[in-house]
Amino acid sequence: MRLRNVKGAREILEQSNFFVSNPEEVKGTWNRLFDNDKPIMLEIGMGKGDFILGMAKSHPEFNYVGIEKYESVLVRAIEKLDESNLENVKVINIDAIDVEKIFDREITCIYLNFSDPWPKKKHHKRRLTYKKFLEAYDKVFKDYANIELKTDNDSLFEGSLISLCEYGYIFDDIKLDLWNSGKENVRTEYENKFASLGFKIKYLKAHKKIEERNEI
Amino acid sequence: MRLRNVKGAREILEQSNFFVSNPEEVKGTWNRLFDNDKPIMLEIGMGKGDFILGMAKSHPEFNYVGIEKYESVLVRAIEKLDESNLENVKVINIDAIDVEKIFDREITCIYLNFSDPWPKKKHHKRRLTYKKFLEAYDKVFKDYANIELKTDNDSLFEGSLISLCEYGYIFDDIKLDLWNSGKENVRTEYENKFASLGFKIKYLKAHKKIEERNEI
Repeated sequence: MRLRNVKGAREILEQSNFFVSNPEEVKGTWNRLFDNDKPIMLEIGMGKGDFILGMAKSHPEFNYVGIEKYESVLVRAIEKLDESNLENVKVINIDAIDVEKIFDREITCIYLNFSDPWPKKKHHKRRLTYKKFLEAYDKVFKDYANIELKTDNDSLFEGSLISLCEYGYIFDDIKLDLWNSGKENVRTEYENKFASLGFKIKYLKAHKKIEERNEI
Repeated sequence: MRLRNVKGAREILEQSNFFVSNPEEVKGTWNRLFDNDKPIMLEIGMGKGDFILGMAKSHPEFNYVGIEKYESVLVRAIEKLDESNLENVKVINIDAIDVEKIFDREITCIYLNFSDPWPKKKHHKRRLTYKKFLEAYDKVFKDYANIELKTDNDSLFEGSLISLCEYGYIFDDIKLDLWNSGKENVRTEYENKFASLGFKIKYLKAHKKIEERNEI
């Protein structure tokens, strides 16, 4: 993703009601922040926010939290959100690996849309479906882990299938050509760009029971 | 597959040294038939035999058994095999579901190449990666189940990934575009035809430990 520097990005974020500047302090109490008991869905790498905005509009029965590590990208999402009246979306500015510092057994589903494919083999451990990340996700999910992933990148998709299955996930659905599958789909801002270049959008949905945790 | 009637197909098969007419009687003693202790690889739905012929030539360190349910197709394979001097190939004329009547814990790997995709949902249970078949395969494998699958059909590939993972298989490799993956590949007679039509060949390799069996 090309990142343009956005002057005063942090200030813009801090001014928005959608932005949570102290997410670590909200850990374990996100439902209280939303002021309801609806399931919380998490998008990791929300980019400019088209997906989370579309999902939140279509699904008022869920809460949505978006994570984006680049402030300058998050500002673009905030601009769109600020024009909406949505009450079921919050966004935060952290790295994916830090989710376990922010959430405690309170997430129902994680969305990974067009994550960085990290094509070089030596970088595969940076992929958001690598074991290290799946271990972190285990700590944020309630009783069941649910992951939905979309990508145009074959290698990331292949690697994610292998990694998720090996980690104990079961696939509920796999589509090698999402757009021609008849499946309902809220598009990201990148999805249109990629698909118009002739790439097929690959999709998977997987779940896993979270093992009993040993309390300390 | 279009099946032309081959007159006297059975007679042609019976005359070939490659054809095993009494496979049920060989159950448990296939290595004795091959007169060696090399691992036995099984292709289910071998068609006209290009794959098994190519593999047997390239891998004298393995034995190969090919299964084909249509006599008229098997005759075409036999014609090619009869021209070779291969000693590590046998073929039989049975249905896939009957493998457990023919083999007893003596197979190392099963190849499923361009199996019937059975596109209609109500026919998915006929797919060679459906649970019923995976259960039958469990009985023919030695300590580890190994399956390699190739197809040009998206739906069969998606369904096979889901089914294998759910049944406890772990993926060693997945390729959404086998031909452009740099991976070594012995082509089937259909593979060239399909790929020349612009379809991408999908490939997977999966394994599973065979659970201890309870002896009766």
